[in-house]
Amino acid sequence: MGNQVNELARGIIAGEEKALAKGLTFIENRKSGYRELLDSIYPEVRSCPIWGLTGAPGVGKSTITNYLVDSLANRSERIGVIAVDPTSPFSGGAILGDRVRMMDLAGREGIFIRSMASRGALGGLSPAIMDAVSLYQAFGVDRILVETVGVGQSETDIVSLADTVAVIMMPGTGDDVQTIKAGLLEIGDIFAVNKADLEGAETLAGLLQSMLSSRNGDEKWVPPVIKLVASQGQNLDTLLEKFLDHQKSLEKSGQKEKKEKMRNEMALKMHLQARFQDLYLGPLLGTEDWEKAIKSINRREKSPAYWAEKLISRSD
Amino acid sequence: MGNQVNELARGIIAGEEKALAKGLTFIENRKSGYRELLDSIYPEVRSCPIWGLTGAPGVGKSTITNYLVDSLANRSERIGVIAVDPTSPFSGGAILGDRVRMMDLAGREGIFIRSMASRGALGGLSPAIMDAVSLYQAFGVDRILVETVGVGQSETDIVSLADTVAVIMMPGTGDDVQTIKAGLLEIGDIFAVNKADLEGAETLAGLLQSMLSSRNGDEKWVPPVIKLVASQGQNLDTLLEKFLDHQKSLEKSGQKEKKEKMRNEMALKMHLQARFQDLYLGPLLGTEDWEKAIKSINRREKSPAYWAEKLISRSD
Repeated sequence: MGNQVNELARGIIAGEEKALAKGLTFIENRKSGYRELLDSIYPEVRSCPIWGLTGAPGVGKSTITNYLVDSLANRSERIGVIAVDPTSPFSGGAILGDRVRMMDLAGREGIFIRSMASRGALGGLSPAIMDAVSLYQAFGVDRILVETVGVGQSETDIVSLADTVAVIMMPGTGDDVQTIKAGLLEIGDIFAVNKADLEGAETLAGLLQSMLSSRNGDEKWVPPVIKLVASQGQNLDTLLEKFLDHQKSLEKSGQKEKKEKMRNEMALKMHLQARFQDLYLGPLLGTEDWEKAIKSINRREKSPAYWAEKLISRSD
Repeated sequence: MGNQVNELARGIIAGEEKALAKGLTFIENRKSGYRELLDSIYPEVRSCPIWGLTGAPGVGKSTITNYLVDSLANRSERIGVIAVDPTSPFSGGAILGDRVRMMDLAGREGIFIRSMASRGALGGLSPAIMDAVSLYQAFGVDRILVETVGVGQSETDIVSLADTVAVIMMPGTGDDVQTIKAGLLEIGDIFAVNKADLEGAETLAGLLQSMLSSRNGDEKWVPPVIKLVASQGQNLDTLLEKFLDHQKSLEKSGQKEKKEKMRNEMALKMHLQARFQDLYLGPLLGTEDWEKAIKSINRREKSPAYWAEKLISRSD
């Protein structure tokens, strides 16, 4: 095991594509030894900008991501892409694993794409996503793009992961004010209204603009609102510029470093939770103690709160 | 503290509305003593159907929930509503806390509404939501409705919470196939295409129908697809009927009990995690050990995986 992990780590650090792919799978499946792998590559992690794109399904995220990745690759950058998919509650795997949305880019020189499930076994942003970022950074990419589907939870998680977040919206999804209120204002560094040729695009963009102007004003960066017609390539260059502008602004203000520290704290918390799960929760499932607790809860004798206390003190 | 908790538990069990409201706040804020409260009311928890509604913002969930709650209340049922809101990544609170969507119903006899944040401090479905269900059930409601906003994560969580899940969709949100693929097929017991007077509704409903027909076939229940124009009250009665039908089907097949057991297992896991957080993770934050670990991670000396192992073995 140790040798295999060392070999893998060496390959990743040396920039071998096959090792990267294998390492990402290793990390995602939480195979034994993944902690050693992370530990081996960690000193070689090199900071790079992490960009995030989020929005509801169907707003055109894939088209936009394709453009960004393509443009950056044309500038001879090496790009790591992580496409975060909603997790199936049944299989536990990513649902869009078979997705075609990145087909155009896959296999191109300097472009590395991985689709990953959004959440860990017990909920929350999957720690594997954060570890995949480290792997890309040890392998040596110039930039990482993370695309998450969703309005609800995953899009709030992206804030702790990415330096710069673009929220993609589109007109005509009904109650626009509600959509906007649902946490997105706080999340985005850039707002894009895609399908701007559709009715309601002006209204949505205007609404966004006015809501953003009332956002907490002690920031240096005022999030721009951009109208796109991504399918026709319209204004995508402006979006790319805004990403680059925001990145410069972060570097200048020292926020980049601050964000990195926050990301590290988050990673440590996630690994502590994973550890708890592996060491205590996992081994507990199905034991006599566990079954006794479940039975008692089913009979409504004692509450889950009671049994959690009992079981955790027993494992000390 | 003990006395206050006892008093609260007594009030909830006696069906006092004020005690319920206070208890729900107690549970949501995780005030010290909330475990004792849960434990005190737990033997009085009475099973009742739990219905879930989920869908992206703007699809009309609120109108639909309003109708269902209104109809059931007119049948002299007591209804507990939990409106699950996306959590702000910054304030940690629910974002739509000020929402108006349930205004019509609030304060009506036999209708109890609580808006709650979707997630716990460390991600995942907030355990408080599950505990709120227990509180409602000890208080004595005939039915619980849980409404979650979101396509992504929260809607997969609803499966572990509700007996019956209705997925609400609408036409015109772009890439319908992608929308449908994003895990929703596996989640819904009932599918509703709202705003069925809009272009594309037929196509969406047809697509859903054909995709559902290829869903794993060893089930007794075939999820119906209903077309609604909720704003005009169109077909909402059919939706209510389907909810009642599914509930009967669950009771007949013994699935209701099975779902309850799964819910209990989930609740125990959540409480164990909360316990871990309170006992280990919380006290660790900001300590000398913690700061040392963060510094080492920031300097890329050792990985989060390494430090998680170190820190957790130290706390044993």
